[in-house]
Amino acid sequence: MQETDNALSMDTLASLCKRRGFIFSSSEIYGGINGFWDYGPLGAELKRNIRDVWWRDLVRNRDNVVGLDASIVMHPRVWEASGHLAGFADPMVDCRVCKRRHKADNLCEKQGRKLIKTETGHRLPEGVRCACGSDDLTEPRAFHLMFKTFVGPVEDESAVAYLRPETAQGIFADFGNVLATSRQKTPFGIAQIGKAFRNEINPRNYTFRSREFEQMEIEFFIKPDEAVEAVAGRVARWTDDADLTAPQPDWGWELWHRYWVAQRAKFYASIGLGADTIEYYWQTPEELAHYAKACVDIQFKFPFGAQELEGIAARGDYDLVQHQAFSGKSLEYFDEELKAACAGWSDERKHALVTRKIAEQQARGACGMSVDQVRAWCGRLFDGFYVPHVIEPSAGVDRIALALLCNAYREEWIPAKADESGPKPPVIHGWFGRPPPAGYDVRGVLRFHPRIAPVKVAVFPLLKNKPDLVAKARAIFEDLRSVWQCFFDTAGAIGRRYRRQDEIGTPFAVTVDFQTLQDNTVTLRDRDTMEQVRLPADRLTATLTEKLS
Amino acid sequence: MQETDNALSMDTLASLCKRRGFIFSSSEIYGGINGFWDYGPLGAELKRNIRDVWWRDLVRNRDNVVGLDASIVMHPRVWEASGHLAGFADPMVDCRVCKRRHKADNLCEKQGRKLIKTETGHRLPEGVRCACGSDDLTEPRAFHLMFKTFVGPVEDESAVAYLRPETAQGIFADFGNVLATSRQKTPFGIAQIGKAFRNEINPRNYTFRSREFEQMEIEFFIKPDEAVEAVAGRVARWTDDADLTAPQPDWGWELWHRYWVAQRAKFYASIGLGADTIEYYWQTPEELAHYAKACVDIQFKFPFGAQELEGIAARGDYDLVQHQAFSGKSLEYFDEELKAACAGWSDERKHALVTRKIAEQQARGACGMSVDQVRAWCGRLFDGFYVPHVIEPSAGVDRIALALLCNAYREEWIPAKADESGPKPPVIHGWFGRPPPAGYDVRGVLRFHPRIAPVKVAVFPLLKNKPDLVAKARAIFEDLRSVWQCFFDTAGAIGRRYRRQDEIGTPFAVTVDFQTLQDNTVTLRDRDTMEQVRLPADRLTATLTEKLS
Repeated sequence: MQETDNALSMDTLASLCKRRGFIFSSSEIYGGINGFWDYGPLGAELKRNIRDVWWRDLVRNRDNVVGLDASIVMHPRVWEASGHLAGFADPMVDCRVCKRRHKADNLCEKQGRKLIKTETGHRLPEGVRCACGSDDLTEPRAFHLMFKTFVGPVEDESAVAYLRPETAQGIFADFGNVLATSRQKTPFGIAQIGKAFRNEINPRNYTFRSREFEQMEIEFFIKPDEAVEAVAGRVARWTDDADLTAPQPDWGWELWHRYWVAQRAKFYASIGLGADTIEYYWQTPEELAHYAKACVDIQFKFPFGAQELEGIAARGDYDLVQHQAFSGKSLEYFDEELKAACAGWSDERKHALVTRKIAEQQARGACGMSVDQVRAWCGRLFDGFYVPHVIEPSAGVDRIALALLCNAYREEWIPAKADESGPKPPVIHGWFGRPPPAGYDVRGVLRFHPRIAPVKVAVFPLLKNKPDLVAKARAIFEDLRSVWQCFFDTAGAIGRRYRRQDEIGTPFAVTVDFQTLQDNTVTLRDRDTMEQVRLPADRLTATLTEKLS
Repeated sequence: MQETDNALSMDTLASLCKRRGFIFSSSEIYGGINGFWDYGPLGAELKRNIRDVWWRDLVRNRDNVVGLDASIVMHPRVWEASGHLAGFADPMVDCRVCKRRHKADNLCEKQGRKLIKTETGHRLPEGVRCACGSDDLTEPRAFHLMFKTFVGPVEDESAVAYLRPETAQGIFADFGNVLATSRQKTPFGIAQIGKAFRNEINPRNYTFRSREFEQMEIEFFIKPDEAVEAVAGRVARWTDDADLTAPQPDWGWELWHRYWVAQRAKFYASIGLGADTIEYYWQTPEELAHYAKACVDIQFKFPFGAQELEGIAARGDYDLVQHQAFSGKSLEYFDEELKAACAGWSDERKHALVTRKIAEQQARGACGMSVDQVRAWCGRLFDGFYVPHVIEPSAGVDRIALALLCNAYREEWIPAKADESGPKPPVIHGWFGRPPPAGYDVRGVLRFHPRIAPVKVAVFPLLKNKPDLVAKARAIFEDLRSVWQCFFDTAGAIGRRYRRQDEIGTPFAVTVDFQTLQDNTVTLRDRDTMEQVRLPADRLTATLTEKLS
C-alpha cells in the first residue's frame, strides 16, 4: 500500500461537507445549478475566517495597503479597456453526432494533442474525436466567459452590462479616486474582497472551478524600474539569498514580485498550508500574457492534482494605461522624489535613458512602444510623472476553503475503547473509506489551523441533567464566547461530543465536571493529540489566547 | 432660522464622501453607471464594521441563529416559487412625445392621482401627463426588476437565470439542509449577508436606492401558533407592557415579531442610531402582502424624508410552503414536544381545532386553505409535523451606511484660534454650507459611534522630524493596531491632524510629545468634546477598550 494511493475523493469530502453543514449544492431542492455552491453554517464561518485573516494581515496591519469594495456590475467600457470583452473567451467545439460541447483545448489535451492557434482563432489538429467516438466536430468557436445582463428598462445593446469576471478591474478603475483620497505614495496597494463570475463551460472538481466565486486581490502599485533607478541610483536584482523581509528603496518590479510571493507563502503557512502542501508554478515566457513580466501560480496539492490557489503577476503598467486610453482620464502618479532626482540630470544622461528605453521597446516587437511614445514617456518621467506598475497577488476564497478542507481532513484509526486498560497502540493515519483493523475505531477529524477553524472552543457540562454543572459550563461558555466563536453542547456522552467537534475541526474542548464545582478547574482537550489537561478555569482565556493565535 | 431648514443635502454628503474616500461612483472614469456605487478605503471599513457588528450580535452571540452564505445566481425555479418571476415588476409608461419613461405610480402620485389596478395589470387615471406636458402616454406595462442572465454556453430560454433580488430565498431554499446539519430546534434563525440586485427604473437619493446593494437578513423560524398552544397551553398576546427581553415558550408569531422589532431597535441604538433618529411604520392591512401577518418598516429620518432601513415581516409559512410545492421536497419540521403534547388529545379536542382552523381559513377568502387542506394540515400537526412560520428582519447594509453618514455629519462652528487666550464662546452646531460668524472656524466632523467608526484611534508624534518622538509614537501605534483599526499620521500641525481625523470620524487621537519621553504619558483627545486628557501610555489599551465598546 503506497501512501500516495490514499487520496481523499471529492465525493467523500462533499459528503462530509454536506453532512456537517460546510457546503451545499446551490438550490439543491430544485436539482441544483451547475457551478454554484452555498456555504452552510460552518462553511460561512470558515469563509469569514479566511477573509478576516487576509484583511487583517494585508490591510489593517499594513500602512501601505488600503481597502476597496467596488460594485460587481461596472460600466461595460471597463471590459473593453481590460481586454475581457474581446479576449475573454474559450474556444469550444460541438459534436454533430452526440451534440456534446467540449472546451477545445481540454479535448485535444486528453488525446495527447495540442489545439492549433490560427490568425483568426483556433483549429483542431487532425484526428481529434468526441467522447462518443465521432470525429464530426465543429470548428472551435469562441464562447464568452462573462455573464451578460441588461441594466435599465430596455434590453438592447446600449444596455448591456457584465458581471465582473475578476475584482481587479474595480481597483484599476478607482485608482485615481483612491490615490486622491488616501494620501498614499508608491509603493502602495489597494485590496478588495468580492464575488466574481465566469460562465465556465465545464465547472468541475467540486467547488474548485465554479461559475460564481469569491476573490481576494491586491493591486500593489510600484515605481517603474527607471524611476527606482533615478531615485535610488540602482535597481536591485534578485538573487537566491536576497532578503525579502524588508522592502528597500532600490527594489524594482522583480524584487517586489518576489517579495509578494514570499509574503503570500507566509500567509498560507499561517493558516495551515505549509511548504509541503504548496507548489510554485512559474509561467514560461510563452505562457505569459504579452504585458506580463512574470507570473507565479501558488498551487495547492489537491487530491485531483496541484492546482492554483493564487496567481501573483507582475503586470507592468498595462491595466492603468489601458484605462487611461479608454477613459481619456489621466491615471499618472506624481512622484516628488523622482522629480527632484531628475532635476539635476544633464541632457546627455536623459538622452542615454531615452536611447536605452527605445532599444528595450524595439526588442518587444509589436508590443513595444513606438519611438515617439518612448520620448513622451521619458519626458513625463523627468518631470516626476509615471503610470505605476503593478504586482497583483490574486487569490480565490473558495479555492482556499477547499484546500483547507482537503488538507485538514483525516480518517484516523484510534484504539477502541475496550482496550483502555492495557497499553494503547498508537493512532494511525487511516485509509479513506476503509474499515480500521481490529481493535480500532475510525475518527473523522478536520485538523484545521486554529486561525481558520469555524468554531474555536466547545464547552461541555459533563452531564446534561445536573443544573449546577450546566450553569457553571454555561458561564464559562459565555465568557469565552465574548472573544471566540464557541459551541455549547450538552447532548450525549462526552466521547461522542468530542467526536462531533473533531469532525467540524474545533481545536479545543472544555469540560466542566464535578471537580470543577469543588476547585474551579476544568479539563482542556486538544483535538489533535486528544490529550486532556486540567487547569484552573480562570486561566482558560489566557491559555486559549496563546494556543489560538 | 428654523433648525429644520438646516438639512444636509445629499450633494454635500456625496462630496464629503468622495473627498474622504468613503463612496465613489462606480466606473467614474467612464462617466459612472447609474445605480452602482463603490466604497473607498474608509467606506469599505465602515461597511465591514456594520457587517461585523451585525454578525457578532445576531449570529455569534446567539445560540439559536446560524449563518449561511448562498450563491447570488440560483436555480430559476426559486423565483417561480417565491413569486418574484410573476410579480416582481413595476408598471411603467412611456411618453410618445419626449420618449421619457416613468414609473406609473410615481407619475400619478406626483399629480395627486392614483394608479388604477385592473384585472390584468394597471391603467392610468384620466389626465395624467408627462413632465414634458404631453398626455400621449402608453398604457402601463410591467417592467421586471430582476436582472436576467444566461448560464451555460447557449443563450436561450432554458439557460435563463437571475441575479437574486433578495438574499432571503437562499435561506428558504437551504432550510432543509441547514436544519439537518445544525441540530437547531424551533425557534431558530438562519442569517445571511450578501449582495442582491434590482433593476430599479429610477435609482435615487444618492446610494439609498441602488441597483446593486447588500442585505443582512435573518429568517427566524418559529412554531405555528397552534403548535405553541398545544405545547404551552396558550399563546401569549402582546400588550403594551409585555416583557420582550426574554423569549417564552408561549410566544406566538405576534410576540416573536415584537421581540425582533425590539431587538433591532436595540441594535440601531448600539451603533448610534438612537430612538430620536428612527420611525416605525406599521404597514396597514391593505398594504400587507396577502400572506403577511404584520410588517414594520424601521425608518431612518434621512434629510430627504423618513425611509426604510429594515423591514421586519411576519410572513407565516408562505415561503417554505411555496418551495415545498415547487420542489416536491418536504420542508416540514418534526417537533418531538408537539407530538408528545398532542398524543393525549381526545378526538373531540382535535375536532375542535380543525373546526376553528376551517373557520379561520374561510375568513381569508381565496387566500385561505380549503377544508381538505386544513384537515391534512391538522393531521400532520397532531403527529408533530409542521412547516415553520417565519419572522424576517431584513436590513440594507448600504442604507445603514448612508444613515450613519447622514446622522454623524456635522459642520460645527468652533472658536477660532486667535481667541485662545480669553474665555471661549461655546461650539455651535453650524449650518451646512454657511460661513461661520466672526471669530469662529468651521469643523467638519463625523460623530460616528465608536463601534462602527472606520478608524478607532489615530496616533501622532508631536513633531515629524524628531526620531525619538516618531519611534515612541510608532511603538504605541503598533501596540494599538493589534487590537483596533488605527491610523498613524506625522504630517502637518497637530491641529490639522485632529481636523483630518474629525472629518473621517475617528473617535480618539493619541499624541506623543516631549513629556512622553520623560514620564511615558500621552494625551488622549476626544473627537466630540475636543478635550484632551493626559494619561500613562500603558493605560491606553484599557482606557480605549472601555471607551470603544
